[in-house]
Amino acid sequence: MQTAYRAIRVALLGAGSVGSNVARLMIENKQELAQRVGAEFELAGILVNDPTKNRPGIPQSLLTSDAKNLILSADIVIELIGGIQPAKEYVELALNSGADVITANKALIAAHGPELFELAEQLGAQLYFEAAVAGAIPIIRPLRESLAGDKVNRVMGIVNGTTNFILDRMESTGADFNEALAEATALGYAEADPTADIEGYDAASKAAILASLAFHSEVPVEKVYREGITSVTAMQMETARQAGYAVKLLAICERVDDGLVARVHPTLIPLNHPLAAVRGAYNAVFVEAESAGQLMFYGAGAGGPQTASAILGDLVSAAKRHLAGGPGLADSVHANLEALPVQRIQTRYQITLQVSDEPGVLASIASVFAEHGVSVETVSQSAGAGGALLTVMTHRASEQALEQVVSSLRTNNSVQQVSSVIRVEGM
Amino acid sequence: MQTAYRAIRVALLGAGSVGSNVARLMIENKQELAQRVGAEFELAGILVNDPTKNRPGIPQSLLTSDAKNLILSADIVIELIGGIQPAKEYVELALNSGADVITANKALIAAHGPELFELAEQLGAQLYFEAAVAGAIPIIRPLRESLAGDKVNRVMGIVNGTTNFILDRMESTGADFNEALAEATALGYAEADPTADIEGYDAASKAAILASLAFHSEVPVEKVYREGITSVTAMQMETARQAGYAVKLLAICERVDDGLVARVHPTLIPLNHPLAAVRGAYNAVFVEAESAGQLMFYGAGAGGPQTASAILGDLVSAAKRHLAGGPGLADSVHANLEALPVQRIQTRYQITLQVSDEPGVLASIASVFAEHGVSVETVSQSAGAGGALLTVMTHRASEQALEQVVSSLRTNNSVQQVSSVIRVEGM
Repeated sequence: MQTAYRAIRVALLGAGSVGSNVARLMIENKQELAQRVGAEFELAGILVNDPTKNRPGIPQSLLTSDAKNLILSADIVIELIGGIQPAKEYVELALNSGADVITANKALIAAHGPELFELAEQLGAQLYFEAAVAGAIPIIRPLRESLAGDKVNRVMGIVNGTTNFILDRMESTGADFNEALAEATALGYAEADPTADIEGYDAASKAAILASLAFHSEVPVEKVYREGITSVTAMQMETARQAGYAVKLLAICERVDDGLVARVHPTLIPLNHPLAAVRGAYNAVFVEAESAGQLMFYGAGAGGPQTASAILGDLVSAAKRHLAGGPGLADSVHANLEALPVQRIQTRYQITLQVSDEPGVLASIASVFAEHGVSVETVSQSAGAGGALLTVMTHRASEQALEQVVSSLRTNNSVQQVSSVIRVEGM
Repeated sequence: MQTAYRAIRVALLGAGSVGSNVARLMIENKQELAQRVGAEFELAGILVNDPTKNRPGIPQSLLTSDAKNLILSADIVIELIGGIQPAKEYVELALNSGADVITANKALIAAHGPELFELAEQLGAQLYFEAAVAGAIPIIRPLRESLAGDKVNRVMGIVNGTTNFILDRMESTGADFNEALAEATALGYAEADPTADIEGYDAASKAAILASLAFHSEVPVEKVYREGITSVTAMQMETARQAGYAVKLLAICERVDDGLVARVHPTLIPLNHPLAAVRGAYNAVFVEAESAGQLMFYGAGAGGPQTASAILGDLVSAAKRHLAGGPGLADSVHANLEALPVQRIQTRYQITLQVSDEPGVLASIASVFAEHGVSVETVSQSAGAGGALLTVMTHRASEQALEQVVSSLRTNNSVQQVSSVIRVEGM
């Protein structure tokens, strides 16, 4: 005997890779989901550009191009269109109609999260976005709920699979950046225009979301410091490896004085750090909290079925809340630490320099660091073309002092070139 | 201006390492917690054996030995006594009085979880236990909520910090089991009587809880297959390392046919598997789900502040639900897969044998595997005392067939000793 359940009407906006997987899972697991929730999901419709186009596994009758009527007919709206408009308009329409909204749209949340959350709160509706950061990895719930009684000091994430794949290939095969990018493109890990990934824009959106969650504060994406991976060289990877480090593109959000700094840049981390073991296109988010200590969340950061899994998790939560009332995930911005510029951080740095190979160079370089109060841990020297190559590892120093050091080095007569400056974390 | 909040009365049962940290965090972060929850926590009292004993940082007036009155005065009861009785009696008293209960008591949940959840459900109360498995690592919420729309196929966890510390020391220093155990004891990682840890009883309780959550089924702890780490040798660690594996004590829960198998035993996993990088006393839970793919949750598995962090997370959730009503974590046992014996699994095995060093031995051994349909992947031979040492790695085989192989090998004239049989996972 089948149990009869109440129906919850769900509108799906978008039928791309994630959307079609969500539709498939809702159809395939209909009875199982009904048992978990205590109500049946009814797929009210799927918004697509062309409803006449056949899509395998999805009944044609569900397809529609009429966004407004579909949204207004639903209890829960799943927005998988991406981008800012018309996604924002649809999310607002849904919230205004009293529906709960689930989205995987990191750009929308990073750019307009605060106003959308405020709108939802005013209307007593919920906005879920577990899939917007790190795909299938449950990171939103742990940050908002499990760590709700703790104090997060720092979050470091590998939140972009494309760049992690590229750096991993450079490390394991010795390929240079362009070769590894070409491989990523050929394998479908990088898009035709990879700018958003390799220049760190995608990671910066996620850093803004992670920072706002971890520190209960508004963090506009424009306040996130951002460097991509295009200037990382095969030689840099090799030098790092020999010194016991991996090069990763990290999104780092940390408390600094009474504010916070969010930043995205290539980073050296020790090979025995858990983040160093995150290979290929996988993502991971490493959290340091006052009481909980070190935590890490690892998994697939993207992909249709993986992201659909996160959407379904949100759907079950939204449905349970819809049936029973009560609190959702929303959590007011109550700390509101100011998002400070990157100059406010303190960390360690590795600087590589091409210098002329003559007596007194090392003393001259060392005095530049000393003048600005930056303490040097190690210096190693190797032969370079037309001079020597110096690799300097500093102790903890302020970004501001380090910028002054680099600026002085650039005008120093013994320095031919400052080849690279890279931050070192996880010690 | 301070906002005035409603008060939620919290009873704390136990003031050991976790309890005193919970009390400290509740007192230190009172205002911050009130902002997050929208209500103030009032610590109604702390149950201790001797209320006259002074405890630093905890007001004497909060201490009481009157369990009944304390429990009946509270909205939320936090049980940190451990063991079955009187913990069970107190939890039942609290639920019957309409209070929500938070516990870190894995023994209680593993032994009496189903009846306690049923009692809570009948009374409309909630029972939270994030701290009972893997300390500070948020694993209960991800399994119950984030993956609620997915299908978990397998969970593999390093869920006991003591044994992971011992195995890690054996691997990194070449120490034998007793040396590493002595070091763990000296450093406070192992208790005076380490039986529950090193024989796998603690991990088996956690495996029962993980299996019941992952598969929405009742899994009595008696159905969990269990082997400890006392027979793991330094030589086995070294052999594993050379072959590209780490030895870990894993709690493994997996779907098998229409049932599930939960088991705890020393396991070989490839060095490039994320679980192999879990060092020292850290814990990690690796989950394979149909859509989400591979996920891992990593962090401190024990410790007063760490476990207290998980308790506070549950406390915030419980308080929000208390204020707003609505659904909690509870999730009915609706799949109820049968817990099957370990003979039903299929995996790979590494078997080491001492054999006489004479012509035809290899053929004789190989035929034993072939007779029982177990396919051999590699055999390596090295010189042993008074014979040769064979290391056999099989392809996937059923546990039942493997048991028959081992039994035949033991009576084979060429075999002096079956030195070890270890399962291989994570390939």
